[in-house]
Amino acid sequence: MRGLLPGALLLCALTATAAQTGADGESSEPRPPANVILFIGDGMDEHQITLARNYLYGANGSLSMERLPVRSSAQVQTLREEDPRQYRYVADSANTASTLATGELTSMGRIATSAGDDRDLPTILEAARQAGLATGLVTTANLTDATPAAFAAHTAHRNCQNPGDMHRPISYTPKSQQCLADHQSQGGKGSIAEQLLASGVDVLLGGGKKEFTRIDSNTPLEKTAASHGYHLLEQREKLLAYRGSKPLLGLFANSHLPVEWIGEGRRRAEPITFNLLGEPVFPAPFTCQPNPKHQNTPTLEEMTHVALEQLAGKSTGFFLMVEGASIDKQAHQRNPCGEIGELQAFNRAVALGQTFASKQANTLIIVTADHGQAGQIIPLPEYYQSWGNKQYPPGYYAVLKTRSGELMGVSYATNAAPQGKSELHTGVNVPVFLQGIGDKRVPALIDQRTINQLMRQHLGLVSGSQ
Amino acid sequence: MRGLLPGALLLCALTATAAQTGADGESSEPRPPANVILFIGDGMDEHQITLARNYLYGANGSLSMERLPVRSSAQVQTLREEDPRQYRYVADSANTASTLATGELTSMGRIATSAGDDRDLPTILEAARQAGLATGLVTTANLTDATPAAFAAHTAHRNCQNPGDMHRPISYTPKSQQCLADHQSQGGKGSIAEQLLASGVDVLLGGGKKEFTRIDSNTPLEKTAASHGYHLLEQREKLLAYRGSKPLLGLFANSHLPVEWIGEGRRRAEPITFNLLGEPVFPAPFTCQPNPKHQNTPTLEEMTHVALEQLAGKSTGFFLMVEGASIDKQAHQRNPCGEIGELQAFNRAVALGQTFASKQANTLIIVTADHGQAGQIIPLPEYYQSWGNKQYPPGYYAVLKTRSGELMGVSYATNAAPQGKSELHTGVNVPVFLQGIGDKRVPALIDQRTINQLMRQHLGLVSGSQ
Repeated sequence: MRGLLPGALLLCALTATAAQTGADGESSEPRPPANVILFIGDGMDEHQITLARNYLYGANGSLSMERLPVRSSAQVQTLREEDPRQYRYVADSANTASTLATGELTSMGRIATSAGDDRDLPTILEAARQAGLATGLVTTANLTDATPAAFAAHTAHRNCQNPGDMHRPISYTPKSQQCLADHQSQGGKGSIAEQLLASGVDVLLGGGKKEFTRIDSNTPLEKTAASHGYHLLEQREKLLAYRGSKPLLGLFANSHLPVEWIGEGRRRAEPITFNLLGEPVFPAPFTCQPNPKHQNTPTLEEMTHVALEQLAGKSTGFFLMVEGASIDKQAHQRNPCGEIGELQAFNRAVALGQTFASKQANTLIIVTADHGQAGQIIPLPEYYQSWGNKQYPPGYYAVLKTRSGELMGVSYATNAAPQGKSELHTGVNVPVFLQGIGDKRVPALIDQRTINQLMRQHLGLVSGSQ
Repeated sequence: MRGLLPGALLLCALTATAAQTGADGESSEPRPPANVILFIGDGMDEHQITLARNYLYGANGSLSMERLPVRSSAQVQTLREEDPRQYRYVADSANTASTLATGELTSMGRIATSAGDDRDLPTILEAARQAGLATGLVTTANLTDATPAAFAAHTAHRNCQNPGDMHRPISYTPKSQQCLADHQSQGGKGSIAEQLLASGVDVLLGGGKKEFTRIDSNTPLEKTAASHGYHLLEQREKLLAYRGSKPLLGLFANSHLPVEWIGEGRRRAEPITFNLLGEPVFPAPFTCQPNPKHQNTPTLEEMTHVALEQLAGKSTGFFLMVEGASIDKQAHQRNPCGEIGELQAFNRAVALGQTFASKQANTLIIVTADHGQAGQIIPLPEYYQSWGNKQYPPGYYAVLKTRSGELMGVSYATNAAPQGKSELHTGVNVPVFLQGIGDKRVPALIDQRTINQLMRQHLGLVSGSQ
């Protein structure tokens, strides 16, 4: 254990009461099975939320997640691989999802393993399964991507997605995080795809078919899945029509699922250009449009719906993680319309979770992000121009025409590298929205370990590391 | 009234109960006088808070304000002067302080006047005074600067600070917001300095001596102040020793007060430079240091202490606004050490408010910001370098060595203009921390009008516009 968990004692005191009296304060009656739905908007800090809210619902609007009854904010903490007593102030999805999953801090790139000494860290999903609860992971990314992986796999690095990755050196990563030691031939648990197939998780829905195919390229994927007890689904229609009760592996794209929205004319944020007088020329406004490539892809809401039906059907209580993965991926690509469309999709999944929880008592919903992202709402061209012609944003810039017909300036300015390269994460605190904690107070500032504790306490699971 | 106040109905329902049963739920006993302390961290969004917290207290630390029991987040809304049915998505301190002060939205630059038609909007401070409560304004900026001004003055534009400003055209501002109409010779209420002197506010502490001197340059300022009933204080020692009960005008600098911290070697964020091979050269790390120019300046905590003593001494209940003004001003100047030092000073004032409230029941504390700012925590040079030598931040960049000896990358990248010009505000939601609302729930998302309502309800004041 490193450092003190700031809200830990308070939360313990609070939930001791909760366990005795039930989530809604009534005593004696047996409680319905406890459920947790953890919604992770990847990269979804307050700035990305405001950007989407403004575009979709205007200056007076709100998102469903913002109507949850309780708000807190989570510190994002990252250890240094080479000296885990030291911190970095910008995280990645691997170390932060690992903390949400395990309740322990670790270093960038790690999947539920400890910084420096590579111990496997037990996850809440594993503890839930051991306690007989149903479990599920739903994402718009590869199922083998960092966020879902951290709940049901343990590797030294997020890049170890399929067996073929394990021998390839990862140039930008320290020796202690190369994948080879995780290879089954070295006595490891294998790649993330292999570990997920062996995990026993009841519902796995997302993208990343090619990662699973590479486990055994000589065998049809359906057969590989079946050998681990999974019913494979590859089409939206099949998913929506499924009424069986077998463990589900839904893989709806070779890699990440196509995003819901793109910019008009495929436009993204662009660098400022200059006219012959050397004056800045600002990009013209554009709107967001549906992405034709998303057709026939299940939405995050649809996948969440099937997952909830499956898990609630087992009526033992459940743990479900739902990730809006491409909020982050689209911000990396300086694509505000991609970001907004994915945040809308994520928010719809949250709304579905809220409806579920309103009918199924004892369901804790936590909506949070893993880390901050680059997008910022900044002034419009007219504002820069009012101050003289040497003033313009230095990074990549877009002017969106929102649904209410107003203009909004959006900037990505963490990396000067050209298009095709990537904007970078930021180190800001991330929002936490909660529903289902009854009258209990959650401190205004918590950290991501406390989110793990809150979920374990709700499910009656003791932390694996305590 | 424009649009619906999202949390309004809920809050009304909640505070109806509160009024009947007292802040802590007990009934029948007479309540002590109601007090409100509104702390405004100018430009203090979640990113600026995280930046200061990391520097001061490390990855596991927290600020006093973050230990207040309740957190919400406020939408920042700005009308367009030329069409007040339309919104902008980036605000300034004038329109947002006006909303906090009046409960109504307005356009950029306006001081408690309405967008388009220039009506004076009654403020909570004026209502408090009319109801016999004591009132105070404390700031590290000019007292005539936008944030304090919006609570006790009404002008078409924030630039109308002294009578000399009134004839000067403001080039970047629409005709409807030129100051001339506010000039006393035109039947207006005069400049902000004149209006503050006539305001009857019990305690006015901050900077901006030169704005008041210009009211009547032939008369000593002490005499001008006395003619409006004010005891003038110009020195820290005199402020700390003051035991009288006269209305106080404390002016501790000609313009804004000197900031508490500067960077080692006066360093700020800097643009990336390039070596002969065209490779980016990242700035070397630096630490923050006390600013020698701040010596003999009262701290925000000291001014808040005197204000609380004065106001509580009148025991009628009070409204006090305390502004940490230069968090914003230092971010404009790409000065992370300036920002952090001012945020620390602001946080100390908040801590003092918390101590006061713990002894004086029925005190509502709200800590919030007016709008977002440019500063972002971004990766370190080592991270950019690990991805190849064409990757570097495009704006102004600093690497701070924090108190715990770790490195933190900070970027300002909203304006490519050279040093001496200004970074710009951002459009993100701002945090709201609350203490003294008892068991009542504040929605996870409110807007700045709702903050005004919460304060009016606590003081038992009916909104002037309802």
